[in-house]
Amino acid sequence: MSDLNADFVQSVERLFGNRATMALAALSQHGHSEVHYEDALPQLVVYAHNTEEVAELLKLANQFEVPVTPYGAGTSVEGNALPVHGGVCVDLSEMDSILAINQADLDCTVQAGVRREQLNDYLRDTGLFFPIDPGANATIGGMASTRASGTNAVRYGTMREAVLSLRVVLPDGKIVRTSQRAKKSAAGYDLTRLFVGSEGTLGIITEITLRLHGIPETISAAVCPFNSLGGAVDTVVQIIQIGLPIARVEILDSAQMRAVNRWSQLSYAEQPTLFFEFHGSQAYVLEQIETAKLLSHENGGGEFSWADKVEDRNRLWKARHEAYYAAVNVRPNAVGWTSDVCVPISRLAECIELTQHELAEMQVPATILGHVGDGNFHVIFSIDPTSVDELRAVEEFNKRLISRAVAMDGTCTGEHGIGIGKKACLLEELGDDVVALMRSIKGVIDPKGIMNPGKIFDL
Amino acid sequence: MSDLNADFVQSVERLFGNRATMALAALSQHGHSEVHYEDALPQLVVYAHNTEEVAELLKLANQFEVPVTPYGAGTSVEGNALPVHGGVCVDLSEMDSILAINQADLDCTVQAGVRREQLNDYLRDTGLFFPIDPGANATIGGMASTRASGTNAVRYGTMREAVLSLRVVLPDGKIVRTSQRAKKSAAGYDLTRLFVGSEGTLGIITEITLRLHGIPETISAAVCPFNSLGGAVDTVVQIIQIGLPIARVEILDSAQMRAVNRWSQLSYAEQPTLFFEFHGSQAYVLEQIETAKLLSHENGGGEFSWADKVEDRNRLWKARHEAYYAAVNVRPNAVGWTSDVCVPISRLAECIELTQHELAEMQVPATILGHVGDGNFHVIFSIDPTSVDELRAVEEFNKRLISRAVAMDGTCTGEHGIGIGKKACLLEELGDDVVALMRSIKGVIDPKGIMNPGKIFDL
Repeated sequence: MSDLNADFVQSVERLFGNRATMALAALSQHGHSEVHYEDALPQLVVYAHNTEEVAELLKLANQFEVPVTPYGAGTSVEGNALPVHGGVCVDLSEMDSILAINQADLDCTVQAGVRREQLNDYLRDTGLFFPIDPGANATIGGMASTRASGTNAVRYGTMREAVLSLRVVLPDGKIVRTSQRAKKSAAGYDLTRLFVGSEGTLGIITEITLRLHGIPETISAAVCPFNSLGGAVDTVVQIIQIGLPIARVEILDSAQMRAVNRWSQLSYAEQPTLFFEFHGSQAYVLEQIETAKLLSHENGGGEFSWADKVEDRNRLWKARHEAYYAAVNVRPNAVGWTSDVCVPISRLAECIELTQHELAEMQVPATILGHVGDGNFHVIFSIDPTSVDELRAVEEFNKRLISRAVAMDGTCTGEHGIGIGKKACLLEELGDDVVALMRSIKGVIDPKGIMNPGKIFDL
Repeated sequence: MSDLNADFVQSVERLFGNRATMALAALSQHGHSEVHYEDALPQLVVYAHNTEEVAELLKLANQFEVPVTPYGAGTSVEGNALPVHGGVCVDLSEMDSILAINQADLDCTVQAGVRREQLNDYLRDTGLFFPIDPGANATIGGMASTRASGTNAVRYGTMREAVLSLRVVLPDGKIVRTSQRAKKSAAGYDLTRLFVGSEGTLGIITEITLRLHGIPETISAAVCPFNSLGGAVDTVVQIIQIGLPIARVEILDSAQMRAVNRWSQLSYAEQPTLFFEFHGSQAYVLEQIETAKLLSHENGGGEFSWADKVEDRNRLWKARHEAYYAAVNVRPNAVGWTSDVCVPISRLAECIELTQHELAEMQVPATILGHVGDGNFHVIFSIDPTSVDELRAVEEFNKRLISRAVAMDGTCTGEHGIGIGKKACLLEELGDDVVALMRSIKGVIDPKGIMNPGKIFDL
């Protein structure tokens, strides 16, 4: 990696003042991810405050051909925000203004650095909420960039459905808005969806207009243990197939429940378990619950433990959200690795069963959990970072898991994105011609290849 | 327009045999649209039977730089399938095989020429249905290409949400599949959504994998007349704002109701009217109906006339689907012109009211109807095709309507697409930089500009 051009640095410093830094602490923070990937430091970090600043920065970066990596909360898990080619990291976390709430239209516009919990806190008094919930308290910009989803996606969709419109700075510094705020449109190419999931490789998303939903009259959450993981999976598959509009349905295997109990000091049964949530009017929620109970019972489910009070419900979902940390920390000084396959629901039981068999043979501690209503589940490994053997074993396991999912017409990533970790998997999944098509779009929008280079595919 | 290259024609004839034709009847049929646009004939028509044939054709067209226009059912209304640069028209209507129904996954894969009514007839015994309903019995390929929606979109979304994956022939003849069949994915750029709505300008969609839905346990439809159009609109706005999951809610003004009565020999009250449909369990449908009734009553709505039996319901929606023809044919030998703006729901009442005022000043017969739950409505004019004045007056009216909608953060087209008719509107709506971005994507995927030239934007 060559040194940054001095004129470039000087121009950036003139623009950002003391919000541009080369301090090692800042470089380290922005060159580190939560998972097993090696650190990769940027050469310069800037903290942007508005779209226009980002545009000025990209004009300079384009002129001097400096790599640019956008950074939000740093919660991505495929190295999506690691500046593997150095250059400048644009930290958007201080762009955290909520710009507009259109209560009557059930939408809002936020800066990219707004975090999802911040948005929901802000929305509380409006009777609206933003449903997409990847667990981590990610930024909305980051969530849009990786096409995030999570626990509520089974009912409310993913960022693909949640984003109405984007304000984007293109690699040459032009500022565009991808669409109007109307709920639907047939006006030309769907640029909004092109940028959602492009992981910062086509430009920098600076503002996002999001669909919101009314907070349901009744929310009921419950936990139900099962005799077998297969029984829990079958319950979910049947719930989806009959079209029950369940708001959340999450699976955790017994190892995961053990980890959750230990990490969050809880005392759930350490069996395969489903976490449920139901939304609607009181009568409609009761109706949904009856069906879910019946199906659970038929598949070896035990009693439902209810969490109807807000505090209890929050405790339940906090435990679910901490499941990743719980799983990684089953042993000290471990580092996490999470898989992310998603398959058609008809293949889910088979895919999880085969995965379980393979895990039984492995020495590395692992748990299974996931958003099974969408066919999406994760295996979380707790890896000894000093052990090359463990890393290699998990890598090989993950390759086999992905090949299996792809053979089932599934995807290597339901919600984490490709990042640096799954470029080969993307080729395996979609083939050379499709990836070449993506690459050609990248080439025409970012001809100098400055935007988050090294991600999704190699140029 | 120059003559087609003789070698090209010979090669195509060798490929397609008597499914390639230059007969005037075939050229005329494929050069004509249902609306006010002038005919524009292709020089050659081929009837494709499979993806591989389409690929061979595009290889030749690319080599000889011959314009290619895909054609489905010919029901588009913005000249989207008019071969304005001549060349070859690829008729896909004989590619009408249903390739797979994955009942357990609630999805199916069809060839592009399958029509939506055909698909729903086929699905009937499976307990599933395909909800997207633009009125016309369009092909699925055409619906994907124009990002169609229609009466059910308020509950089930548009083709944007309905398409899981596409098989596409690129302009150079390469065959690609845009994604796997999994319900969600974060694997690279969302090429599926890029092709949905691209109006055949980036390649030819030959196979579509669609999400399906379970046929609801209970379906109830009703018609309710209102004292005023404003009262009907307000009812819809309130229904949407409280989050009632209504399956259909359509508005028809009194002129439209008169036209419907005459055309379909019915005797509805000739007042502003809402057509409702509710889906769900019996109890849940009753609950939804109570709320809808209450809101209607508060806004000057009259009695609900119910259509619970399948025959009655079909009659009701048949009348709604024929509303376009009813409106155009209020006078003999007229030709239709339909507007298609879509605005945020908070601006809908104002937008419709201003539109009504303008219509009152006009001499050309017109009706208002639309999918108001999405903020999308149409003005349908019945134009004397021999009158340049009428055409000009409607053109001017439509321009003003679109400017008004765009100023309200709405779009010039909710579901019809840009075609040849709204290229200037697209620029007005999204600006030069955004359209330039679309154009650059077109340029890299179709460098010779053979695919449906003259649509969406000028090159």
